[in-house]
Amino acid sequence: MHSIKELQQIIDKAVKEINYPATPNELYEPIAYLMALGGKRLRPALVLMATDLFGGDIEAAKPPALAIEMFHNFTLMHDDIMDNAPLRRGQPTVHEKWSDSVAILSGDVMFVKAYKLMIQVKPEILIPVLEVFNKTAIEVCEGQQIDMNFESRNEVSIDEYLEMIRLKTAVLVGGALKIGALIGNASAKNADLLYKFGENLGLAFQLQDDILDVFGDPEKFGKQVGGDIISNKKTYLLIKALELAKGNDLAKLNDWLSKKDFIAEEKVEAVSALYNQLNIRELSEEVMQSYAKVALDAFEQIDVDVENKKTLLNFAEMLVEREN
Amino acid sequence: MHSIKELQQIIDKAVKEINYPATPNELYEPIAYLMALGGKRLRPALVLMATDLFGGDIEAAKPPALAIEMFHNFTLMHDDIMDNAPLRRGQPTVHEKWSDSVAILSGDVMFVKAYKLMIQVKPEILIPVLEVFNKTAIEVCEGQQIDMNFESRNEVSIDEYLEMIRLKTAVLVGGALKIGALIGNASAKNADLLYKFGENLGLAFQLQDDILDVFGDPEKFGKQVGGDIISNKKTYLLIKALELAKGNDLAKLNDWLSKKDFIAEEKVEAVSALYNQLNIRELSEEVMQSYAKVALDAFEQIDVDVENKKTLLNFAEMLVEREN
Repeated sequence: MHSIKELQQIIDKAVKEINYPATPNELYEPIAYLMALGGKRLRPALVLMATDLFGGDIEAAKPPALAIEMFHNFTLMHDDIMDNAPLRRGQPTVHEKWSDSVAILSGDVMFVKAYKLMIQVKPEILIPVLEVFNKTAIEVCEGQQIDMNFESRNEVSIDEYLEMIRLKTAVLVGGALKIGALIGNASAKNADLLYKFGENLGLAFQLQDDILDVFGDPEKFGKQVGGDIISNKKTYLLIKALELAKGNDLAKLNDWLSKKDFIAEEKVEAVSALYNQLNIRELSEEVMQSYAKVALDAFEQIDVDVENKKTLLNFAEMLVEREN
Repeated sequence: MHSIKELQQIIDKAVKEINYPATPNELYEPIAYLMALGGKRLRPALVLMATDLFGGDIEAAKPPALAIEMFHNFTLMHDDIMDNAPLRRGQPTVHEKWSDSVAILSGDVMFVKAYKLMIQVKPEILIPVLEVFNKTAIEVCEGQQIDMNFESRNEVSIDEYLEMIRLKTAVLVGGALKIGALIGNASAKNADLLYKFGENLGLAFQLQDDILDVFGDPEKFGKQVGGDIISNKKTYLLIKALELAKGNDLAKLNDWLSKKDFIAEEKVEAVSALYNQLNIRELSEEVMQSYAKVALDAFEQIDVDVENKKTLLNFAEMLVEREN
């Protein structure tokens, strides 16, 4: 078995070794730029971890792992245009540094490159692998669309929110793991259990992200704490707070949500205080833990030597306990 | 053998039968809208024609033919954003009717749908089919990027122009035919010859498009004649004219190219007159015919009953002699 760190390093090295054509450079420079910005390489590492779990060949899992990383970065490139995001990992986004057109078209090429990498799996598993990948890709797009729709809606229910993050974030965790399982010749039952583990872990991961955005330690979090509060992002925390707040609290919360001019720190402080009063942190952590539990229950049922399970178990713990 | 019309009707019917999920409708309505705008369905019909040429199963060729049509419409949806195009087939473009974000994301979903349709080919040919498709998709994106680069460049050579239209337009004609050939169990040699036929026919097709844009009969052309002249589009005709014009003619041409304020009809008339003086129509038709000849020479070498070749031969003639 390989450690998480080892697997992340394998991915990092493989990402650096990808060759891009020289021309047209408006197409390939942005791809190389975004891929080099780093990130934790968690999704591709998951492909390798899943293959490793079933004693499969890590080498064979590298191209599809890179496919997952390429796909993930393609979605970031396009999402950043749609979200008007100026920065990605502290650096200018591709559409800012070049143009919207460049970001659209470079993204499209990344998507083809993802398929080119993905079809390098063994022919025997090509169709099931592509079926997982296609389904996942469509669901991620659906999740992004639903997320954008939320911005112009007044009310979003908890269930709608959870379905959105399932599509936008969690299915790719499940999909990466399932593809790795198929490469490792896992049985259909084990592959499905690993998907379930990933999907629920992905939900827990996103909920933890939402919690950290409000309650994270600014020193450790890596981005501005309170960003979601400042932008009125409809996260689990806000939706729950709107559900629970009554009378004066609800009026105060709605007042902050409707304010156009405000001092960011004041808004973050005031809304956080309301969250504290309503026990939002504990409630969010409870639901996050409940997803982590569903994930771990599915994982436990996977029929493979318990020794092999250590890396993914560590990984799951790391995700849920992380501070950034 | 089936006639072109029969095959186009098969495609039209199949396009109408595609089912789209109901939600999120911001994602699927634009796809259904663009796919229903029509068009000649030439590219998917080519897949069927190629399968038919080798006596293959037309039914089996339908999903990959739809994949080609879905891919083609995906590129139109994204290109229209980049080109700021208000209309597509006389109707508002998706980014105009909805938004840039919707057009980006719906396009992305169309691309996945193209892959979902494409992987329905027989498993034995899945890898070669996807290799052709991936290569074609990347080249089409490269062509679009090079085309956009031309807009901000002062000089473009004839060779650069021909390479751009090869990538942007011709390879998809070749790719559609080659995929159809693979479905029809063509030999590698025959499949490659058919690709060559398609690639060169595609070049002839685009050159004919450029010619019709200037010299087409307004009654038959279907769009505004002279659009390329009005927008200074660097087509074969303009590049050749700039190469051949001397002295006063060159000055006049450059003057029209640099004018910001002008009456469209006057510009079209004046530039067309210069083209006539320089024999641009004949020169363009010559080079167009030379590509058609390379295409037909490759086609002749394909080792299949001459009776089977009639439909594609008719098609080639139709493309080169068309008036719209």
